Amino acid sequence: MLSKAKIKLINSLTYKKYRDSTGLFIAEGEKLTRELAMARFSFNLLIATEGLMPYYDSVGCEKIVATPEQFKQISQFKHPSNVLALCYQKRLKPDISGLKNELSLVLDQIQDPGNLGTIIRLSSWFGLRHLICSTDTADCYNPKAVQASMGALAHVDIHYTNLKTFLNDAKEAGIPVYGTFITGKNIYNEKLDSNGLVVLGNEGKGISHEIEGLIDNKLSIPSNNFNRLSVESLNVSVAAAIVCSEFRREFLS
Amino acid sequence: MLSKAKIKLINSLTYKKYRDSTGLFIAEGEKLTRELAMARFSFNLLIATEGLMPYYDSVGCEKIVATPEQFKQISQFKHPSNVLALCYQKRLKPDISGLKNELSLVLDQIQDPGNLGTIIRLSSWFGLRHLICSTDTADCYNPKAVQASMGALAHVDIHYTNLKTFLNDAKEAGIPVYGTFITGKNIYNEKLDSNGLVVLGNEGKGISHEIEGLIDNKLSIPSNNFNRLSVESLNVSVAAAIVCSEFRREFLS
Repeated sequence: MLSKAKIKLINSLTYKKYRDSTGLFIAEGEKLTRELAMARFSFNLLIATEGLMPYYDSVGCEKIVATPEQFKQISQFKHPSNVLALCYQKRLKPDISGLKNELSLVLDQIQDPGNLGTIIRLSSWFGLRHLICSTDTADCYNPKAVQASMGALAHVDIHYTNLKTFLNDAKEAGIPVYGTFITGKNIYNEKLDSNGLVVLGNEGKGISHEIEGLIDNKLSIPSNNFNRLSVESLNVSVAAAIVCSEFRREFLS
Repeated sequence: MLSKAKIKLINSLTYKKYRDSTGLFIAEGEKLTRELAMARFSFNLLIATEGLMPYYDSVGCEKIVATPEQFKQISQFKHPSNVLALCYQKRLKPDISGLKNELSLVLDQIQDPGNLGTIIRLSSWFGLRHLICSTDTADCYNPKAVQASMGALAHVDIHYTNLKTFLNDAKEAGIPVYGTFITGKNIYNEKLDSNGLVVLGNEGKGISHEIEGLIDNKLSIPSNNFNRLSVESLNVSVAAAIVCSEFRREFLS
Protein backbone atom coordinates (compact mmCIF):
# COMPACT_ATOMS: atom_id res chain seq x y z
CA MET A 1 0.00 0.00 0.00
CA LEU A 2 1.16 3.50 -0.77
CA SER A 3 1.29 5.04 2.70
CA LYS A 4 1.22 8.71 3.56
CA ALA A 5 4.78 8.38 4.82
CA LYS A 6 5.95 7.10 1.42
CA ILE A 7 4.14 9.91 -0.42
CA LYS A 8 5.81 12.38 1.92
CA LEU A 9 9.23 10.79 1.38
CA ILE A 10 8.87 10.88 -2.41
CA ASN A 11 7.79 14.50 -2.52
CA SER A 12 10.54 15.50 -0.09
CA LEU A 13 13.09 14.27 -2.64
CA THR A 14 12.37 17.22 -4.90
CA TYR A 15 14.56 19.07 -2.37
CA LYS A 16 18.32 18.61 -2.44
CA LYS A 17 18.48 18.59 1.36
CA TYR A 18 16.44 15.40 1.53
CA ARG A 19 18.17 13.81 -1.46
CA ASP A 20 21.47 14.41 0.34
CA SER A 21 20.32 13.05 3.68
CA THR A 22 18.73 9.89 2.22
CA GLY A 23 21.08 9.34 -0.75
CA LEU A 24 18.00 8.67 -2.89
CA PHE A 25 16.54 10.20 -6.04
CA ILE A 26 13.28 9.92 -7.96
CA ALA A 27 13.22 8.09 -11.30
CA GLU A 28 9.90 8.29 -13.08
CA GLY A 29 8.73 6.65 -16.30
CA GLU A 30 9.22 3.30 -18.00
CA LYS A 31 12.24 4.22 -20.10
CA LEU A 32 14.26 5.73 -17.27
CA THR A 33 13.49 3.05 -14.67
CA ARG A 34 14.36 0.26 -17.12
CA GLU A 35 17.60 1.91 -18.17
CA LEU A 36 18.60 2.44 -14.54
CA ALA A 37 17.83 -1.22 -13.80
CA MET A 38 19.91 -2.36 -16.79
CA ALA A 39 22.75 -0.08 -15.66
CA ARG A 40 22.63 -1.78 -12.25
CA PHE A 41 21.56 1.17 -10.19
CA SER A 42 20.31 0.04 -6.75
CA PHE A 43 16.59 0.48 -6.15
CA ASN A 44 15.10 1.37 -2.79
CA LEU A 45 11.43 1.35 -3.81
CA LEU A 46 9.45 0.66 -6.96
CA ILE A 47 5.87 1.81 -7.43
CA ALA A 48 3.96 0.69 -10.53
CA THR A 49 0.46 0.07 -11.79
CA GLU A 50 -0.63 -3.55 -11.62
CA GLY A 51 -0.15 -4.14 -15.34
CA LEU A 52 3.42 -2.86 -15.37
CA MET A 53 4.74 -4.55 -12.23
CA PRO A 54 5.60 -7.91 -13.89
CA TYR A 55 8.14 -6.14 -16.11
CA TYR A 56 10.20 -5.31 -13.03
CA ASP A 57 10.60 -8.87 -11.73
CA SER A 58 14.38 -8.65 -11.86
CA VAL A 59 14.51 -5.52 -9.71
CA GLY A 60 15.12 -6.39 -6.08
CA CYS A 61 13.54 -3.87 -3.69
CA GLU A 62 10.30 -3.06 -1.91
CA LYS A 63 7.45 -2.91 -4.46
CA ILE A 64 4.09 -1.19 -4.21
CA VAL A 65 1.21 -1.42 -6.66
CA ALA A 66 -0.53 1.93 -7.12
CA THR A 67 -3.52 3.18 -9.09
CA PRO A 68 -3.30 5.96 -11.71
CA GLU A 69 -5.18 8.11 -9.17
CA GLN A 70 -2.45 7.52 -6.57
CA PHE A 71 0.26 8.39 -9.11
CA LYS A 72 -1.12 11.92 -9.21
CA GLN A 73 0.05 12.34 -5.61
CA ILE A 74 3.64 11.36 -6.31
CA SER A 75 4.28 12.20 -9.95
CA GLN A 76 6.74 14.92 -10.92
CA PHE A 77 5.09 15.19 -14.36
CA LYS A 78 2.11 17.09 -15.67
CA HIS A 79 0.86 13.82 -17.10
CA PRO A 80 1.67 11.27 -14.39
CA SER A 81 3.59 8.19 -15.42
CA ASN A 82 2.66 4.68 -14.27
CA VAL A 83 5.97 3.72 -12.76
CA LEU A 84 8.17 5.58 -10.30
CA ALA A 85 11.21 4.38 -8.42
CA LEU A 86 13.45 5.64 -5.68
CA CYS A 87 17.04 4.78 -6.54
CA TYR A 88 20.30 5.17 -4.71
CA GLN A 89 22.56 7.93 -5.98
CA LYS A 90 26.00 7.01 -7.25
CA ARG A 91 28.63 9.10 -5.56
CA LEU A 92 31.69 8.89 -7.75
CA LYS A 93 35.09 10.50 -7.60
CA PRO A 94 36.96 10.90 -10.86
CA ASP A 95 39.85 8.53 -11.51
CA ILE A 96 42.39 10.46 -13.57
CA SER A 97 43.93 7.40 -15.19
CA GLY A 98 40.50 6.31 -16.43
CA LEU A 99 40.05 9.66 -18.20
CA LYS A 100 43.31 9.54 -20.15
CA ASN A 101 41.91 7.96 -23.27
CA GLU A 102 38.53 9.65 -23.16
CA LEU A 103 36.87 12.87 -24.16
CA SER A 104 34.99 14.37 -21.20
CA LEU A 105 33.15 17.59 -20.49
CA VAL A 106 33.86 19.50 -17.27
CA LEU A 107 31.18 21.80 -15.87
CA ASP A 108 32.17 24.86 -13.86
CA GLN A 109 29.17 26.11 -11.84
CA ILE A 110 26.35 25.19 -14.24
CA GLN A 111 23.25 26.35 -12.41
CA ASP A 112 20.23 25.20 -14.38
CA PRO A 113 19.26 21.54 -13.86
CA GLY A 114 17.63 21.52 -17.33
CA ASN A 115 20.94 22.51 -18.94
CA LEU A 116 22.74 19.87 -16.89
CA GLY A 117 20.27 17.16 -17.97
CA THR A 118 20.60 18.19 -21.62
CA ILE A 119 24.40 18.00 -21.32
CA ILE A 120 24.18 14.50 -19.77
CA ARG A 121 21.93 13.46 -22.69
CA LEU A 122 24.25 14.76 -25.38
CA SER A 123 27.32 13.36 -23.59
CA SER A 124 25.72 9.94 -23.89
CA TRP A 125 24.86 10.53 -27.56
CA PHE A 126 28.48 11.32 -28.35
CA GLY A 127 29.76 8.35 -26.34
CA LEU A 128 31.26 10.35 -23.48
CA ARG A 129 31.33 8.08 -20.45
CA HIS A 130 32.19 10.64 -17.80
CA LEU A 131 31.00 14.11 -16.85
CA ILE A 132 32.95 16.09 -14.26
CA CYS A 133 31.14 18.80 -12.29
CA SER A 134 32.29 21.43 -9.83
CA THR A 135 30.77 20.86 -6.40
CA ASP A 136 28.57 23.93 -6.91
CA THR A 137 27.13 22.73 -10.23
CA ALA A 138 23.41 21.85 -10.18
CA ASP A 139 22.55 18.43 -8.74
CA CYS A 140 22.28 15.72 -11.41
CA TYR A 141 19.64 14.02 -9.24
CA ASN A 142 17.35 17.06 -9.31
CA PRO A 143 14.12 15.78 -10.95
CA LYS A 144 14.44 18.38 -13.73
CA ALA A 145 17.98 17.22 -14.55
CA VAL A 146 16.94 13.58 -14.41
CA GLN A 147 14.03 14.27 -16.76
CA ALA A 148 16.06 16.36 -19.23
CA SER A 149 18.70 13.61 -19.38
CA MET A 150 16.07 11.30 -20.93
CA GLY A 151 17.56 8.18 -19.43
CA ALA A 152 21.17 9.13 -20.14
CA LEU A 153 21.78 9.49 -16.40
CA ALA A 154 22.01 5.69 -16.45
CA HIS A 155 24.88 5.70 -18.93
CA VAL A 156 27.14 8.59 -17.98
CA ASP A 157 29.22 8.53 -14.80
CA ILE A 158 28.85 11.90 -13.12
CA HIS A 159 31.54 13.08 -10.74
CA TYR A 160 31.36 16.06 -8.38
CA THR A 161 34.74 17.29 -7.31
CA ASN A 162 36.96 20.27 -6.54
CA LEU A 163 37.73 21.36 -10.11
CA LYS A 164 40.95 23.15 -9.26
CA THR A 165 42.53 20.06 -7.72
CA PHE A 166 41.08 17.82 -10.40
CA LEU A 167 42.38 19.92 -13.31
CA ASN A 168 45.80 20.22 -11.73
CA ASP A 169 45.96 16.44 -11.39
CA ALA A 170 44.72 15.97 -14.97
CA LYS A 171 47.37 18.34 -16.33
CA GLU A 172 50.06 16.55 -14.40
CA ALA A 173 48.88 13.30 -15.99
CA GLY A 174 49.30 14.89 -19.42
CA ILE A 175 45.61 15.22 -20.27
CA PRO A 176 44.94 18.24 -22.54
CA VAL A 177 42.58 20.78 -20.97
CA TYR A 178 40.36 22.88 -23.25
CA GLY A 179 37.76 25.46 -22.32
CA THR A 180 35.22 27.63 -24.15
CA PHE A 181 35.52 31.41 -23.98
CA ILE A 182 34.11 34.39 -25.87
CA THR A 183 37.64 35.34 -26.85
CA GLY A 184 39.29 31.95 -27.44
CA LYS A 185 40.71 30.57 -30.69
CA ASN A 186 38.17 29.73 -33.41
CA ILE A 187 37.18 26.13 -32.70
CA TYR A 188 36.68 25.46 -36.43
CA ASN A 189 40.36 26.19 -37.15
CA GLU A 190 41.97 24.29 -34.31
CA LYS A 191 43.45 20.81 -34.48
CA LEU A 192 41.59 19.14 -31.64
CA ASP A 193 42.89 16.11 -29.74
CA SER A 194 40.52 13.18 -29.80
CA ASN A 195 40.86 12.82 -26.03
CA GLY A 196 40.93 15.42 -23.31
CA LEU A 197 38.83 17.61 -21.07
CA VAL A 198 36.67 20.53 -22.19
CA VAL A 199 35.55 22.99 -19.51
CA LEU A 200 32.23 24.83 -19.93
CA GLY A 201 31.37 27.74 -17.68
CA ASN A 202 28.41 29.17 -15.78
CA GLU A 203 25.39 30.40 -17.76
CA GLY A 204 25.90 34.03 -16.83
CA LYS A 205 29.54 34.42 -15.85
CA GLY A 206 31.32 31.82 -17.96
CA ILE A 207 34.38 30.00 -16.64
CA SER A 208 35.53 31.27 -13.25
CA HIS A 209 38.82 33.15 -12.97
CA GLU A 210 40.37 30.49 -10.76
CA ILE A 211 39.68 27.77 -13.35
CA GLU A 212 40.63 29.88 -16.37
CA GLY A 213 44.30 29.83 -15.32
CA LEU A 214 44.34 26.03 -15.58
CA ILE A 215 43.14 25.89 -19.19
CA ASP A 216 45.81 25.35 -21.85
CA ASN A 217 43.64 25.71 -24.93
CA LYS A 218 41.04 28.44 -25.04
CA LEU A 219 38.41 27.79 -27.70
CA SER A 220 35.64 29.99 -29.02
CA ILE A 221 32.57 29.25 -31.12
CA PRO A 222 32.51 32.17 -33.56
CA SER A 223 29.30 34.08 -34.18
CA ASN A 224 28.14 34.69 -37.72
CA ASN A 225 26.67 37.99 -36.82
CA PHE A 226 28.99 40.83 -37.68
CA ASN A 227 26.58 43.73 -37.51
CA ARG A 228 26.18 43.42 -33.72
CA LEU A 229 22.48 42.82 -34.18
CA SER A 230 22.80 39.54 -32.39
CA VAL A 231 22.69 37.80 -29.10
CA GLU A 232 25.97 37.85 -27.21
CA SER A 233 26.14 34.29 -26.05
CA LEU A 234 25.05 30.75 -26.67
CA ASN A 235 23.12 28.63 -24.22
CA VAL A 236 25.67 26.41 -22.40
CA SER A 237 24.07 23.16 -23.55
CA VAL A 238 24.13 24.44 -27.14
CA ALA A 239 27.82 25.29 -26.72
CA ALA A 240 28.42 21.81 -25.27
CA ALA A 241 26.71 20.25 -28.31
CA ILE A 242 28.88 22.16 -30.78
CA VAL A 243 32.01 21.29 -28.80
CA CYS A 244 31.16 17.56 -28.81
CA SER A 245 30.29 17.69 -32.51
CA GLU A 246 33.63 19.33 -33.36
CA PHE A 247 35.72 16.95 -31.25
CA ARG A 248 33.90 13.93 -32.69
CA ARG A 249 33.18 14.85 -36.30
CA GLU A 250 36.37 13.42 -37.75
CA PHE A 251 35.86 10.15 -35.95
CA LEU A 252 32.18 9.97 -36.87
CA SER A 253 32.56 10.90 -40.53
CA MET B 1 -0.28 54.45 -11.63
CA LEU B 2 -0.25 50.72 -12.04
CA SER B 3 -3.98 49.94 -11.96
CA LYS B 4 -5.57 46.61 -11.17
CA ALA B 5 -6.80 46.44 -14.77
CA LYS B 6 -3.21 46.73 -16.06
CA ILE B 7 -1.96 44.06 -13.67
CA LYS B 8 -4.78 41.82 -14.86
CA LEU B 9 -3.98 42.52 -18.52
CA ILE B 10 -0.28 41.73 -18.05
CA ASN B 11 -0.90 38.48 -16.24
CA SER B 12 -3.53 37.44 -18.81
CA LEU B 13 -0.81 37.58 -21.48
CA THR B 14 0.81 34.45 -20.10
CA TYR B 15 -2.08 32.72 -21.94
CA LYS B 16 -1.99 32.39 -25.73
CA LYS B 17 -5.70 33.14 -25.99
CA TYR B 18 -5.17 36.65 -24.64
CA ARG B 19 -1.95 37.22 -26.58
CA ASP B 20 -3.88 36.32 -29.72
CA SER B 21 -6.85 38.56 -28.99
CA THR B 22 -4.75 41.60 -28.02
CA GLY B 23 -1.78 41.04 -30.35
CA LEU B 24 0.51 41.88 -27.41
CA PHE B 25 3.30 40.08 -25.58
CA ILE B 26 5.28 40.61 -22.41
CA ALA B 27 8.91 41.70 -22.63
CA GLU B 28 10.68 41.82 -19.29
CA GLY B 29 14.17 42.98 -18.39
CA GLU B 30 16.52 45.74 -19.51
CA LYS B 31 18.34 43.79 -22.20
CA LEU B 32 15.24 42.53 -23.96
CA THR B 33 13.26 45.78 -23.82
CA ARG B 34 16.22 47.76 -25.16
CA GLU B 35 16.84 45.31 -27.99
CA LEU B 36 13.17 45.35 -28.95
CA ALA B 37 13.20 49.15 -28.96
CA MET B 38 16.33 49.19 -31.16
CA ALA B 39 14.72 46.67 -33.49
CA ARG B 40 11.73 49.02 -33.83
CA PHE B 41 9.12 46.83 -32.22
CA SER B 42 6.02 48.88 -31.32
CA PHE B 43 5.40 49.33 -27.62
CA ASN B 44 1.95 49.48 -26.06
CA LEU B 45 3.00 50.04 -22.45
CA LEU B 46 6.26 50.47 -20.56
CA ILE B 47 6.55 50.01 -16.82
CA ALA B 48 9.83 50.84 -15.10
CA THR B 49 11.25 51.89 -11.77
CA GLU B 50 11.84 55.62 -11.43
CA GLY B 51 15.58 55.34 -11.93
CA LEU B 52 15.30 53.37 -15.16
CA MET B 53 12.56 55.36 -16.88
CA PRO B 54 14.85 58.06 -18.37
CA TYR B 55 16.62 55.38 -20.43
CA TYR B 56 13.41 54.79 -22.36
CA ASP B 57 12.87 58.38 -23.52
CA SER B 58 12.87 57.38 -27.15
CA VAL B 59 10.13 54.78 -26.70
CA GLY B 60 6.74 56.24 -27.58
CA CYS B 61 3.91 54.65 -25.58
CA GLU B 62 2.06 54.89 -22.29
CA LYS B 63 4.56 54.81 -19.42
CA ILE B 64 4.03 53.92 -15.79
CA VAL B 65 6.52 54.23 -12.94
CA ALA B 66 6.30 51.28 -10.54
CA THR B 67 8.03 50.30 -7.31
CA PRO B 68 10.01 47.07 -6.88
CA GLU B 69 7.12 45.92 -4.68
CA GLN B 70 4.66 46.43 -7.54
CA PHE B 71 6.92 44.54 -9.94
CA LYS B 72 6.33 41.42 -7.88
CA GLN B 73 2.70 41.51 -9.02
CA ILE B 74 3.52 41.54 -12.72
CA SER B 75 6.91 39.88 -13.08
CA GLN B 76 7.27 36.56 -14.90
CA PHE B 77 10.59 35.95 -13.14
CA LYS B 78 11.54 34.47 -9.80
CA HIS B 79 13.63 37.57 -9.22
CA PRO B 80 11.47 40.41 -10.59
CA SER B 81 13.08 42.75 -13.05
CA ASN B 82 12.69 46.53 -12.90
CA VAL B 83 11.37 47.10 -16.39
CA LEU B 84 8.54 45.35 -18.22
CA ALA B 85 6.89 46.25 -21.50
CA LEU B 86 3.92 45.14 -23.51
CA CYS B 87 4.89 45.07 -27.17
CA TYR B 88 2.96 44.39 -30.34
CA GLN B 89 3.62 41.03 -31.95
CA LYS B 90 4.99 40.94 -35.46
CA ARG B 91 2.87 38.74 -37.65
CA LEU B 92 4.99 37.87 -40.63
CA LYS B 93 4.46 35.63 -43.63
CA PRO B 94 7.55 34.21 -45.31
CA ASP B 95 8.61 35.73 -48.60
CA ILE B 96 10.19 32.93 -50.62
CA SER B 97 12.39 35.22 -52.73
CA GLY B 98 13.86 36.71 -49.55
CA LEU B 99 14.93 33.26 -48.39
CA LYS B 100 16.82 32.28 -51.55
CA ASN B 101 20.22 33.44 -50.42
CA GLU B 102 19.81 32.56 -46.77
CA LEU B 103 20.17 29.62 -44.46
CA SER B 104 16.99 29.19 -42.39
CA LEU B 105 15.65 26.64 -39.96
CA VAL B 106 12.10 25.32 -40.34
CA LEU B 107 10.30 23.95 -37.28
CA ASP B 108 7.68 21.23 -37.66
CA GLN B 109 5.51 21.09 -34.53
CA ILE B 110 8.09 22.05 -31.91
CA GLN B 111 6.12 21.95 -28.67
CA ASP B 112 8.34 23.25 -25.93
CA PRO B 113 8.60 27.06 -25.73
CA GLY B 114 12.00 26.71 -24.05
CA ASN B 115 13.33 24.75 -27.04
CA LEU B 116 11.84 27.33 -29.40
CA GLY B 117 13.49 30.21 -27.52
CA THR B 118 16.85 28.40 -27.52
CA ILE B 119 16.55 27.87 -31.29
CA ILE B 120 15.75 31.58 -31.82
CA ARG B 121 18.84 32.43 -29.76
CA LEU B 122 21.17 30.16 -31.70
CA SER B 123 19.67 31.24 -35.04
CA SER B 124 20.68 34.78 -34.16
CA TRP B 125 24.16 33.65 -33.11
CA PHE B 126 24.72 31.97 -36.47
CA GLY B 127 23.35 34.96 -38.38
CA LEU B 128 20.10 33.32 -39.51
CA ARG B 129 17.61 36.11 -40.13
CA HIS B 130 14.46 34.02 -40.50
CA LEU B 131 12.84 31.15 -38.67
CA ILE B 132 9.87 29.39 -40.23
CA CYS B 133 7.41 27.58 -37.96
CA SER B 134 4.44 25.30 -38.60
CA THR B 135 1.22 26.87 -37.31
CA ASP B 136 1.15 24.27 -34.51
CA THR B 137 4.66 25.05 -33.28
CA ALA B 138 4.86 26.68 -29.81
CA ASP B 139 4.17 30.42 -29.71
CA CYS B 140 7.33 32.51 -29.93
CA TYR B 141 5.60 35.13 -27.75
CA ASN B 142 5.08 32.67 -24.90
CA PRO B 143 7.00 34.22 -21.96
CA LYS B 144 9.18 31.10 -21.66
CA ALA B 145 10.17 31.32 -25.34
CA VAL B 146 10.79 35.06 -25.06
CA GLN B 147 12.99 34.51 -22.01
CA ALA B 148 14.95 31.59 -23.51
CA SER B 149 15.63 33.65 -26.65
CA MET B 150 17.66 36.07 -24.51
CA GLY B 151 16.80 39.06 -26.64
CA ALA B 152 17.24 37.27 -29.97
CA LEU B 153 13.50 37.55 -30.59
CA ALA B 154 14.32 41.13 -31.59
CA HIS B 155 16.72 40.04 -34.33
CA VAL B 156 15.15 36.98 -35.98
CA ASP B 157 12.01 37.28 -38.11
CA ILE B 158 9.68 34.47 -37.10
CA HIS B 159 7.07 33.28 -39.56
CA TYR B 160 4.15 30.95 -38.83
CA THR B 161 2.78 29.28 -41.91
CA ASN B 162 1.38 26.12 -43.49
CA LEU B 163 4.64 24.19 -43.92
CA LYS B 164 3.39 22.00 -46.74
CA THR B 165 2.48 24.93 -48.97
CA PHE B 166 5.60 26.81 -47.92
CA LEU B 167 8.00 23.95 -48.67
CA ASN B 168 6.32 23.27 -52.03
CA ASP B 169 6.78 26.93 -52.96
CA ALA B 170 10.38 26.89 -51.76
CA LYS B 171 11.20 23.80 -53.81
CA GLU B 172 9.63 25.36 -56.88
CA ALA B 173 11.86 28.37 -56.35
CA GLY B 174 14.89 26.06 -56.33
CA ILE B 175 15.71 26.35 -52.63
CA PRO B 176 17.33 23.14 -51.30
CA VAL B 177 15.32 21.52 -48.51
CA TYR B 178 17.14 19.51 -45.85
CA GLY B 179 15.74 17.75 -42.81
CA THR B 180 17.13 15.85 -39.82
CA PHE B 181 16.18 12.20 -39.33
CA ILE B 182 17.44 9.26 -37.29
CA THR B 183 18.16 7.40 -40.53
CA GLY B 184 19.40 10.19 -42.84
CA LYS B 185 22.83 10.56 -44.41
CA ASN B 186 25.72 11.31 -42.04
CA ILE B 187 25.78 15.13 -41.82
CA TYR B 188 29.58 15.10 -41.38
CA ASN B 189 30.05 13.47 -44.81
CA GLU B 190 27.65 15.56 -46.86
CA LYS B 191 28.52 18.54 -48.99
CA LEU B 192 26.11 21.11 -47.59
CA ASP B 193 24.86 24.12 -49.55
CA SER B 194 25.56 27.41 -47.82
CA ASN B 195 21.94 28.45 -48.32
CA GLY B 196 18.72 26.52 -47.94
CA LEU B 197 16.13 25.31 -45.48
CA VAL B 198 16.65 22.74 -42.74
CA VAL B 199 13.56 21.16 -41.21
CA LEU B 200 13.64 20.02 -37.58
CA GLY B 201 10.85 17.84 -36.19
CA ASN B 202 8.75 17.50 -33.07
CA GLU B 203 10.48 16.54 -29.79
CA GLY B 204 8.81 13.13 -29.58
CA LYS B 205 7.72 12.21 -33.09
CA GLY B 206 10.29 13.89 -35.32
CA ILE B 207 9.32 15.29 -38.71
CA SER B 208 5.71 14.51 -39.66
CA HIS B 209 4.99 12.10 -42.50
CA GLU B 210 3.36 14.78 -44.61
CA ILE B 211 6.46 16.99 -44.44
CA GLU B 212 8.98 14.14 -44.84
CA GLY B 213 7.90 13.67 -48.47
CA LEU B 214 8.93 17.22 -49.29
CA ILE B 215 12.50 16.87 -48.04
CA ASP B 216 15.17 16.29 -50.70
CA ASN B 217 18.15 15.77 -48.42
CA LYS B 218 17.74 13.68 -45.30
CA LEU B 219 20.51 14.29 -42.81
CA SER B 220 21.41 12.50 -39.63
CA ILE B 221 23.67 13.41 -36.71
CA PRO B 222 25.47 10.13 -36.00
CA SER B 223 25.73 8.82 -32.46
CA ASN B 224 29.08 7.76 -31.10
CA ASN B 225 27.57 5.07 -29.00
CA PHE B 226 27.80 1.71 -30.63
CA ASN B 227 27.04 -0.53 -27.69
CA ARG B 228 23.44 0.65 -27.50
CA LEU B 229 24.07 1.87 -23.98
CA SER B 230 22.97 5.30 -25.02
CA VAL B 231 20.10 7.68 -25.36
CA GLU B 232 18.21 7.34 -28.61
CA SER B 233 17.78 10.95 -29.54
CA LEU B 234 19.14 14.43 -29.16
CA ASN B 235 17.21 17.37 -27.79
CA VAL B 236 15.85 19.32 -30.78
CA SER B 237 17.67 22.54 -29.85
CA VAL B 238 20.91 20.57 -29.55
CA ALA B 239 20.27 19.08 -33.00
CA ALA B 240 19.55 22.58 -34.34
CA ALA B 241 22.86 23.80 -32.92
CA ILE B 242 24.86 21.02 -34.57
CA VAL B 243 23.05 21.62 -37.87
CA CYS B 244 23.85 25.35 -37.80
CA SER B 245 27.45 24.65 -36.82
CA GLU B 246 27.89 22.21 -39.73
CA PHE B 247 26.28 24.50 -42.30
CA ARG B 248 28.35 27.47 -41.12
CA ARG B 249 31.69 26.01 -40.12
CA GLU B 250 33.37 26.41 -43.52
CA PHE B 251 32.28 30.02 -43.73
CA LEU B 252 33.26 30.74 -40.14
CA SER B 253 36.66 29.05 -40.23
